[in-house]
Amino acid sequence: MSLPTESYLIGLIGDGVVPSLTPSMHESEGAAHGLLYLYRPIDIAVLGLPAESVGDLVRAARNLGYNGLNITHPCKQLVIEHLDEIDDDAARLGAVNTVVIREDGRTVGHNTDWSGFLSAFRAGLPGAALGRVVQLGAGGAGSAVAYALLTAGVEHLSIVDVDASRAVERAAELAAMFPGASVEGRTTAELASLIEAADGVVHCTPTGMAAHPGTPFDVSLLGSRHWVADIVYRPIETQLVREARALGCRVLDGGRMAVGQAVDSFRIFTGLEPDAERMRAHFLELIEREERAASEAHPDAAPKAEAGAR
Amino acid sequence: MSLPTESYLIGLIGDGVVPSLTPSMHESEGAAHGLLYLYRPIDIAVLGLPAESVGDLVRAARNLGYNGLNITHPCKQLVIEHLDEIDDDAARLGAVNTVVIREDGRTVGHNTDWSGFLSAFRAGLPGAALGRVVQLGAGGAGSAVAYALLTAGVEHLSIVDVDASRAVERAAELAAMFPGASVEGRTTAELASLIEAADGVVHCTPTGMAAHPGTPFDVSLLGSRHWVADIVYRPIETQLVREARALGCRVLDGGRMAVGQAVDSFRIFTGLEPDAERMRAHFLELIEREERAASEAHPDAAPKAEAGAR
Repeated sequence: MSLPTESYLIGLIGDGVVPSLTPSMHESEGAAHGLLYLYRPIDIAVLGLPAESVGDLVRAARNLGYNGLNITHPCKQLVIEHLDEIDDDAARLGAVNTVVIREDGRTVGHNTDWSGFLSAFRAGLPGAALGRVVQLGAGGAGSAVAYALLTAGVEHLSIVDVDASRAVERAAELAAMFPGASVEGRTTAELASLIEAADGVVHCTPTGMAAHPGTPFDVSLLGSRHWVADIVYRPIETQLVREARALGCRVLDGGRMAVGQAVDSFRIFTGLEPDAERMRAHFLELIEREERAASEAHPDAAPKAEAGAR
Repeated sequence: MSLPTESYLIGLIGDGVVPSLTPSMHESEGAAHGLLYLYRPIDIAVLGLPAESVGDLVRAARNLGYNGLNITHPCKQLVIEHLDEIDDDAARLGAVNTVVIREDGRTVGHNTDWSGFLSAFRAGLPGAALGRVVQLGAGGAGSAVAYALLTAGVEHLSIVDVDASRAVERAAELAAMFPGASVEGRTTAELASLIEAADGVVHCTPTGMAAHPGTPFDVSLLGSRHWVADIVYRPIETQLVREARALGCRVLDGGRMAVGQAVDSFRIFTGLEPDAERMRAHFLELIEREERAASEAHPDAAPKAEAGAR
């Protein structure tokens, strides 16, 4: 008869989280560590709750034996006022995606979006030149990615957004946090010259997802000297990733960040060191299964030969 | 890489439930079925919540991905008004100890205290004579046990309680539900003559627990012709059980009912057939471990030889 196993109960609060692959990544890694590890999606869209209910949900999770939560859109900012403390990076980003519920009931917020991108970037693009980087997209994910890039040592970061004022505002905030770097908000009209002068390009908008097909900019602006990082991971092989790779660029797919945030959250929740490569392998298998299912449902939706060649 | 496993999240709401063995029984049986089965105590004493908060806790559990709940003292009656439906037996008993949270969010109440005692009784005392039975204790557990005894076919049931009016009231309710049987509330003064005439004695008060040592009545009233059922299971070998067995009585220990309710709840939660003997073996191991720990802490507290002889 086996002894009771150490157990973890984790949730993911957000809008539309039911299809998230994060629960399966955590459960699979937990099982590999011999833990009883259960991870539940808590979808405010399904529950018919407003984003502002995140505080009530965190308190309920604490009462009901949860050990931790991941928080995603649109609750990453809203959750902060309901936590007992947050770490310095989450405070500087103004966003929490990971909440530890300690045994004494205290809630502590962290952000593993930036750290997850950072470790993904280091693992997937080792030695990438950090002189000049162009980033497209200044939303929540973009903020975390920019924070990671500047932490990694990027010297000149140009942030471009269709909302030019958002790009300028975000750049100013980051410039204040990283006085040793140059961070500027730029317009889409300047993109060609920015990319021409850059070492790398990072993409943080929804373009390339199934619902937003295409590439976020003219890929012919890229040359083999550029590295390219995408954060879109459905599909894992976006048009941008595919075409950049064909041009000879070193490429980081969006799955790396998705796995990276899960790796860092798992470590924070359990205190155990997750196997990042095992988690990535599991993630890729889940994505492949999804894409195969989509392809069988709509034969034209996912080009099988290309998916298979990856 | 393994496929995601079917998962269950179950909780136990009540006052002082942290030491309950029910979570471990469920988790162990769930693991034996290859399920990812996590069972959390939700202790209103620890949370500083009143018994009336059970409705809020049930709604929170539904929102946070729970599949089911066990409910115990002092919430078994209070929970009923917060459920979408309850089964006929729970309605007749006016008490729910098992709540299924269906995928569509509907909550359905059941009572496995009575059914758990009934299956325990049938398994542990097969062929017991059902003509005349004396039951001590007319509280919540006593009500469930009496309901089970009458369902099993007991012809004459005498219910004795230190609160004589409670015994009479409870007997009247049960008599109305089981018109084919005779059910009477009697006083402790009549106990000797009632036991003299009885086939079996069922004990449903706290006497015999560590905090309430002793026996609930003069055990010398028993003879080898009686069967005896106790519902106290801490210790598993109560003074009543030990002395009755020494007199040659057939005996049902309180662990049988504790396991029986867990067996029936597991079946309701999962739709799978639990292995009752495996659950009892696990339960006995947990109890033995507890008693050994208590014995090591206080050498006089648990007589090792007797515990070992069981």
